[in-house]
Amino acid sequence: MKIELENVLPSDIEKKSFEIIESELPHPIDEKLAPIIKRVVHTTADFDYVDSLYFSENILDIAFDALRSGATIVTDTNMARSGINKKALEKLGCKVECYMSDDDVAKQAKADGTTRATASVDKAGRLEGPVIFACGNAPTALVRIVELMEEGKIAPAFVVGVPVGFVNVVPAKEMIIESGVPCIVARGRKGGSNVAAAIINALMYMITVRE
Amino acid sequence: MKIELENVLPSDIEKKSFEIIESELPHPIDEKLAPIIKRVVHTTADFDYVDSLYFSENILDIAFDALRSGATIVTDTNMARSGINKKALEKLGCKVECYMSDDDVAKQAKADGTTRATASVDKAGRLEGPVIFACGNAPTALVRIVELMEEGKIAPAFVVGVPVGFVNVVPAKEMIIESGVPCIVARGRKGGSNVAAAIINALMYMITVRE
Repeated sequence: MKIELENVLPSDIEKKSFEIIESELPHPIDEKLAPIIKRVVHTTADFDYVDSLYFSENILDIAFDALRSGATIVTDTNMARSGINKKALEKLGCKVECYMSDDDVAKQAKADGTTRATASVDKAGRLEGPVIFACGNAPTALVRIVELMEEGKIAPAFVVGVPVGFVNVVPAKEMIIESGVPCIVARGRKGGSNVAAAIINALMYMITVRE
Repeated sequence: MKIELENVLPSDIEKKSFEIIESELPHPIDEKLAPIIKRVVHTTADFDYVDSLYFSENILDIAFDALRSGATIVTDTNMARSGINKKALEKLGCKVECYMSDDDVAKQAKADGTTRATASVDKAGRLEGPVIFACGNAPTALVRIVELMEEGKIAPAFVVGVPVGFVNVVPAKEMIIESGVPCIVARGRKGGSNVAAAIINALMYMITVRE
């Protein structure tokens, strides 16, 4: 069998990919949200996200405001931190933090009998300025965000709630939606660090020119 | 609506997740390969991988040998590098490298009119000792691996070929399979940096005890 490769210039691969995604969408999608939805499909090759992604009201305006105000993006994995485009962050004056490997977070989690993701949210609660949570892994992070919001201890600019998994992932995402915090959520079990990074990148690319 | 969370201890979440995956498998799977297949499903919540993962003959023995020989794992994204378990790497005396952000790689790619992924494979070709490629993003990396093998310039211990995407991803994966190199491949469009890291981690966990 001869395997044929398409002759596509490296610089055109992403454009061509987005054209294919556009042509295979199962139904028309909101034009304003399309860059986010398509980028998640691009990252996963999974069209389920076309229907599972939930966007709270006015999320784009809220997200753009936060990203233009030099927000700190807090991820729940080092993978998600790695996947967020550093040049776009720099242009916006934003930064990204992940506390999951921090010794103080590990100690706190052990002392509290909880997860490092929970302790990470507690640590993020001490940040100055607007905070964006981008969670692709830990439902416990989402649960803690809701708890601390209810206690009036944090007020995130918005939350990307896309953990993947089988235990408490589905209800934790619904808690974020019901909490009323501005959010983008992948309903159901699917998600991941790659999806969290893709959503943050899509938002940043919508307001800054990529190199 | 009251959203209910299951009361699962943090230390039991992964075990419980794997039990759920086991109970929902669409059909029985090879017992020896099960830890890899289930970890990919755990990482993606996507049971499509049960049928799309391809394993070349004797891949486990070959992979374990390489990982026990202090191999260098070369990834095609910093996300995949981030996702690979550093403690397990250390126990095995292995290391992980990603050249995608290196200046010399960017320059070489520009000079050759190719991708940084291609130039990264060229750079990896100069490594001493056993090399494992873990590609979750760039089909051009897989194509270059096949080219350099055909030219007799590289002989990877094995290849994890799981790029995601819409342009040349499917044929590039088939090229890796047809090349005869020991490999684990996610056939079709799906894959990703998270999947590449999950496969490497699953292999490492099979031969080393996790903390």
